Amino acid sequence: MEDYRQIWSELGLDLEAHDGLLAVLPTLYEDTILSQEGRPEGISYFDFVFTEIHGLRIKELYDHRKAGGVVVGTFCTFVPEELIIAAGGIYVGLCAGACIADEEAEKYLPRNLCALIKSSLGFKLAKVCPYIESCDLLIGETTCDGKKKYFEILNEIQPVHVMELPQRKEDIDRRLWREEVGRLVSRLEDLTGNKIAQEALRQAIRVVNGKRRALLRLAELRKSNPPVISGRDSLLVNQIAFYDDPERLTAKVNELCDELEERKARGDGITGAGHPRVLLSGCPMAIPNWKVPAIIETSGAVVAMDEMCTGIRYSRHLVAEDAGDLEGLLDAIADRYLKIDCAVFTPNNERLEHIKELVRDYEIDAVVHHSLQFCDPYTIEAFRIEKELAAAGVPFLSLETDYSMEDVGQLSTRIEALIEMVSSPDRA
Amino acid sequence: MEDYRQIWSELGLDLEAHDGLLAVLPTLYEDTILSQEGRPEGISYFDFVFTEIHGLRIKELYDHRKAGGVVVGTFCTFVPEELIIAAGGIYVGLCAGACIADEEAEKYLPRNLCALIKSSLGFKLAKVCPYIESCDLLIGETTCDGKKKYFEILNEIQPVHVMELPQRKEDIDRRLWREEVGRLVSRLEDLTGNKIAQEALRQAIRVVNGKRRALLRLAELRKSNPPVISGRDSLLVNQIAFYDDPERLTAKVNELCDELEERKARGDGITGAGHPRVLLSGCPMAIPNWKVPAIIETSGAVVAMDEMCTGIRYSRHLVAEDAGDLEGLLDAIADRYLKIDCAVFTPNNERLEHIKELVRDYEIDAVVHHSLQFCDPYTIEAFRIEKELAAAGVPFLSLETDYSMEDVGQLSTRIEALIEMVSSPDRA
Repeated sequence: MEDYRQIWSELGLDLEAHDGLLAVLPTLYEDTILSQEGRPEGISYFDFVFTEIHGLRIKELYDHRKAGGVVVGTFCTFVPEELIIAAGGIYVGLCAGACIADEEAEKYLPRNLCALIKSSLGFKLAKVCPYIESCDLLIGETTCDGKKKYFEILNEIQPVHVMELPQRKEDIDRRLWREEVGRLVSRLEDLTGNKIAQEALRQAIRVVNGKRRALLRLAELRKSNPPVISGRDSLLVNQIAFYDDPERLTAKVNELCDELEERKARGDGITGAGHPRVLLSGCPMAIPNWKVPAIIETSGAVVAMDEMCTGIRYSRHLVAEDAGDLEGLLDAIADRYLKIDCAVFTPNNERLEHIKELVRDYEIDAVVHHSLQFCDPYTIEAFRIEKELAAAGVPFLSLETDYSMEDVGQLSTRIEALIEMVSSPDRA
Repeated sequence: MEDYRQIWSELGLDLEAHDGLLAVLPTLYEDTILSQEGRPEGISYFDFVFTEIHGLRIKELYDHRKAGGVVVGTFCTFVPEELIIAAGGIYVGLCAGACIADEEAEKYLPRNLCALIKSSLGFKLAKVCPYIESCDLLIGETTCDGKKKYFEILNEIQPVHVMELPQRKEDIDRRLWREEVGRLVSRLEDLTGNKIAQEALRQAIRVVNGKRRALLRLAELRKSNPPVISGRDSLLVNQIAFYDDPERLTAKVNELCDELEERKARGDGITGAGHPRVLLSGCPMAIPNWKVPAIIETSGAVVAMDEMCTGIRYSRHLVAEDAGDLEGLLDAIADRYLKIDCAVFTPNNERLEHIKELVRDYEIDAVVHHSLQFCDPYTIEAFRIEKELAAAGVPFLSLETDYSMEDVGQLSTRIEALIEMVSSPDRA
């Protein structure tokens, strides 16, 4: 990646610390992703993108900005990327999936805070994330308490526009959220100097819908038994969807799906039929967080579906493309994003219903719930999900974890016990 | 309290567990409150109310219900008690200030959750709180993530009406909150069978304003140096204000203030002048949580003001009484409650400004910030407050604690170091 050092330096990265980060990623990737057997050929594009994680894409952002464009960073699936694209900007999801500079972050944030938020600030303070340093604007949202209050602190270092997400989905909440979409339009227009025009917005909606459709096609293929792709590879594709060029990504996901369809037709797959099928549900797993799926899949099960923001929660809903004029398109965007069944809503019965639907459609043998430690919305909601699934006879395991590797042994023991339980001949 | 056993039994309390709870309170009260020297005579009413905590007031609620009235329980200062009173109901704040049945509560809630929420569920599950068992309706609110999601769980045991609190204070947020006030009116009218009429509401506003004015008068008297009342006694008065009869309480607080005014005129007080004056800020301290103020005041300082929900945050703002017709009064109620500067708002600069104002007006030597462990809004906001106060040269100590007594030694050491530092002659 020697060619990129000049860009990293211009972005203000701490090159030494950054070298340290880049040095550990290949081993982690080799151990967790590349070591899998029977991977489809089409996954090689995503391997390439990961290998170039701070290279090629950063160069694209750099060139875009040199040509007068803007880059906008987000932290959550609630921020309408269609608007950023329609304003001529590039959207990047800021990942924060690894322990970075925890000690430094804890000078500004409490210890008892989820790993994702601490990691986000850690990357910023340690100056090792070329994505956040490429951003002309960050867009936060009032989802959970932790992020809401974190953005006040981050805003003192780099400008953050915060969207207010309501906490229910009644008429007044829809009106509030629709206004927030309008307020973001104004902010993006001010930032870029471009008016968001009707046809540009419709085109941006098509682009993002295209990406979501491709991811949904991949999701649909995961119903196959034997599975045609691993949970880890599917997660990787979803993680990369947050920062890669959307049209290129769409094409590559579709190519991958073409191959997987052939596999399916041949009855070919990554592991034999009969391996327990796990639904992974809960908090997002930002790149390079593959800890829990790796444990599940090296314990003799397959992650057949992910009910997470880095899974089907991201691609599940599309924006109506034929929603009339500019205002109608903005209405459609507001509607689509308010359908997201994040645990921050109360009540959030849609999520419970969706989980039960996934369990049925994906022939799930057990649900593993992934909460980041100290995440109140998902951790508390897990108790309700457990109760509902118990009533339906679905085995359930609730995990609270973070980004450290200290609990891998303990997690493995619990996951292995679950898999053994659902694999027992008595159940079959 | 033998006379009350029949009522407790009718309310479904676990009498044995309840006896256990009542057995520990007198010692705690003796050690923490009664052992103070130089208490004003007027505090004896509040001692009496505490002694009768599950007696006299519970009998009043019981008689009110027998006569066809309703009792409504709340968890937060955001719920307009004026509406409950105007509908002919009795309002009680549900305290949850002690560790009760933690282990049982953790079957329904995560371990990493604030002591207040766990205590609330613990009291309910252990059947030892005659207040919650006297309630015909509970009213929750979407303040923090923990409570928002907790109410979903509590609602499965006892009906909870949840008010949606917005997260900012813009026009659309005001409209949302105003609708929530209207929705609560409907719910209370359905519950009681009474229409909330204009004059009844105006009268209820006068009653609650009267209570807040009396508490503000007490707050004002705490500017005295030497102090005329301890922080613990002031806290006790504020805690009792959440569940005592409002008009009786108002009279008793005013009687107490008459006495304190005489003390002040005589230059008499509870401790000599020159003791460091502490502002206690942050999360509420529900009865019987006096841990931190007791440590502060037995370490040679006085808590001269409380910037907490169980302090001036509760009494600070009044509702306009001359706000026209019924709709105007409801507007005034919505406006008043949205002024509360809780850390759940973003941004929440009003709180920072208010703290600085209190530091000046109360001649504060040091600020002690009290966060309940795992409370993201206050714990994160403490970092901003520390930064602002440091810039103004105000000593600041941020504590994260819960209801256990395990950290008393450690808290004492930190608090003593702070008091020693601000007492040093170099600073004087």
